[in-house]
Amino acid sequence: MIPIPKGFSVAGVRCGLKNKRNDLGMIVSDRESNSAGVFTTNYVRASSVNYSRKVVESGKLRAIVVNSGNANCCTGEQGERDTARMAELAARELGLETDQIAVGSTGIIGHLLDMSKVERGIKDAGQKLGMDARAFMDAILTTDLVEKWAWVTSDNHEVVSPQSLSQRHHDSDQGGLLIGFAKGSGMIAPNMATMLGFMVSDMDVSDLDFQPILKRVADVSFNCMTVDGDTSTNDMLILLTNGASGIKATEAEFEAALTAVCTSLAKQVARDGEGATKLVEVRVTGTSDPKKIARTIGESPLVKTAMFGCDPNWGRILMAAGRAGVPFQTGDVRLSLIMGDEEHILFEDSGPASFDAKRVSSALKSDHVIIDLKLGDGDQATVYTCDFGYGYVRINAEYHT
Amino acid sequence: MIPIPKGFSVAGVRCGLKNKRNDLGMIVSDRESNSAGVFTTNYVRASSVNYSRKVVESGKLRAIVVNSGNANCCTGEQGERDTARMAELAARELGLETDQIAVGSTGIIGHLLDMSKVERGIKDAGQKLGMDARAFMDAILTTDLVEKWAWVTSDNHEVVSPQSLSQRHHDSDQGGLLIGFAKGSGMIAPNMATMLGFMVSDMDVSDLDFQPILKRVADVSFNCMTVDGDTSTNDMLILLTNGASGIKATEAEFEAALTAVCTSLAKQVARDGEGATKLVEVRVTGTSDPKKIARTIGESPLVKTAMFGCDPNWGRILMAAGRAGVPFQTGDVRLSLIMGDEEHILFEDSGPASFDAKRVSSALKSDHVIIDLKLGDGDQATVYTCDFGYGYVRINAEYHT
Repeated sequence: MIPIPKGFSVAGVRCGLKNKRNDLGMIVSDRESNSAGVFTTNYVRASSVNYSRKVVESGKLRAIVVNSGNANCCTGEQGERDTARMAELAARELGLETDQIAVGSTGIIGHLLDMSKVERGIKDAGQKLGMDARAFMDAILTTDLVEKWAWVTSDNHEVVSPQSLSQRHHDSDQGGLLIGFAKGSGMIAPNMATMLGFMVSDMDVSDLDFQPILKRVADVSFNCMTVDGDTSTNDMLILLTNGASGIKATEAEFEAALTAVCTSLAKQVARDGEGATKLVEVRVTGTSDPKKIARTIGESPLVKTAMFGCDPNWGRILMAAGRAGVPFQTGDVRLSLIMGDEEHILFEDSGPASFDAKRVSSALKSDHVIIDLKLGDGDQATVYTCDFGYGYVRINAEYHT
Repeated sequence: MIPIPKGFSVAGVRCGLKNKRNDLGMIVSDRESNSAGVFTTNYVRASSVNYSRKVVESGKLRAIVVNSGNANCCTGEQGERDTARMAELAARELGLETDQIAVGSTGIIGHLLDMSKVERGIKDAGQKLGMDARAFMDAILTTDLVEKWAWVTSDNHEVVSPQSLSQRHHDSDQGGLLIGFAKGSGMIAPNMATMLGFMVSDMDVSDLDFQPILKRVADVSFNCMTVDGDTSTNDMLILLTNGASGIKATEAEFEAALTAVCTSLAKQVARDGEGATKLVEVRVTGTSDPKKIARTIGESPLVKTAMFGCDPNWGRILMAAGRAGVPFQTGDVRLSLIMGDEEHILFEDSGPASFDAKRVSSALKSDHVIIDLKLGDGDQATVYTCDFGYGYVRINAEYHT
């Protein structure tokens, strides 16, 4: 059972923008909320991004309406009118004002929304508001294979996610709740966040300044994730809290909870990258800019195809590190791969280590690989990515067929 | 017949570093030469790069020895000794000094060279020096499917290349000759050049300052080419002239000839990108940095898979343009695809143009596609790349198997 924070309700319905799944979702708070948002940095962006940024900045956000199957991007003035119309329809349905509604869209670019379907969907969703998190999540997915969600409570900061649920229980009714939903599996890169991410909490944190908190958290979670180096036109990450649990949290407590949830979601998105067979965590320590090096490794098609092929090809990893534009000495390099309890050193003391290539290749079949690259003393940075196989090509070359 | 400039001889032999092809090549001038070189900017680089840079800087270069099948990179001090030993063996064979020999290597990273094979190969090549350009080219290829070469004469600046040979003849014995050989089909990106490129000329241009000329030419040819955004540890572009034809050229004439040859080679390399089915030329006009935008489009996996799938997906092209970090207004955008005589406009006047998607998709089956993106008035930049299909994954994920 996936919990919904107190004072919130959600819905997900099918209005016909996609073939088989739900495609219209809503999240509504029954009272005033505090919110923040982080949006795509792409110069080509959807009208929903511009619209929702203004709503978040106004401080009046109460509800989110989101459709999948059509990103309503590059659709000119009609697209802008359709975004405003989505907010208007949702406002009418919910008895709210237009400037209390954020709008999200994801899917194919450059096609006008079929507004008769959207209108029907918004009415239907308004009628079905409730606690069905799965119906909502289904409505925000596109090429995603799995739902992405993660939650913590004020009593227990251990994250509950699809990866952990069967192993542990903790009671979501206790204390305040923070839950996050995300979608995204292609066109994902740092410098903006998750495709769509909605963080919802009933904790009472109304005195906090959310915007810088959300920006900091995005920088160490969603902005550390890359599937293919491409950044969507529609990305948005919205945080919505209403205090309905009455449970207070300090800034440090809330930021820790938000970081845990967003990091879990970033890993889930990377693991579900288009065509991916595994989550690849790239950890780099040392140099003046370990994040830049980790990102360059995480975006290298040669590294990612080697991960797909279970090939412990340290040469490609070092090549990618070396082209990041950040100086280091090969004499300082220590490179290992970590799969579960096994760590295999591939390179140290200025040359390749002696390792059993067959055994490492076999271990690389794991669905979670950590590339651990030490280039000296200093800060560590982590980037979440995935491998790169036939599936990515199939999904992206045969999208229309 | 592929000509060799006067006063030069070449060889290519098989010494066993690769399975089926030649793997050891030489280019030798019979007299003093003027040379220049551009080398990889990767911080992880092969000892051959460091070695050859010094030889070029000394101004004494007379011969190049190159092996394929093993890049002799990340092989520590033994690798450095092996590079020096290759120069030493070639010098002895050719009756030259060690500091007159540049060394090139390409192939797999991180394995020590089998020096007994290399030694045999260098002796063999020394015996077989002659005019057989094909034997030499075969010796520098790795995953390349085709040889890459281009030449012009001082009398005729039209480039002769594998694409043009059957259509036209001009006489390479007339005047001075400039010919270029290149290899490379993966791990290719701007900010360094071709994997390996050797430009050889018998024109008398001894009074020119080659290094800035070669750098300028590389910037508008090889550095405008990208296959996968990865930069090799072993890249080098060397220019070697000996004046044996007695034909003089001005700086402007020689730079034009070199630009024509290098641009032809850059296109040949992009067209033969690993797994590629077509050459994709990305032309961007306007904004403060059209080259950055062209490069971002040329490296976008989503654009490249769409090209593979013959999908006129203008949304992905605009998305990639928008994430390059260079401001523009979508109202100024005009995007078209050019295949041979056909031009299809996909986007203008702030929205998608009306085009026949089936017809454009059919035209996209061409092996040469120009993406023409106008973002306003101003400079134009071109980047040469290729599409991205199953072949790239197969080659790079199953490299060892």
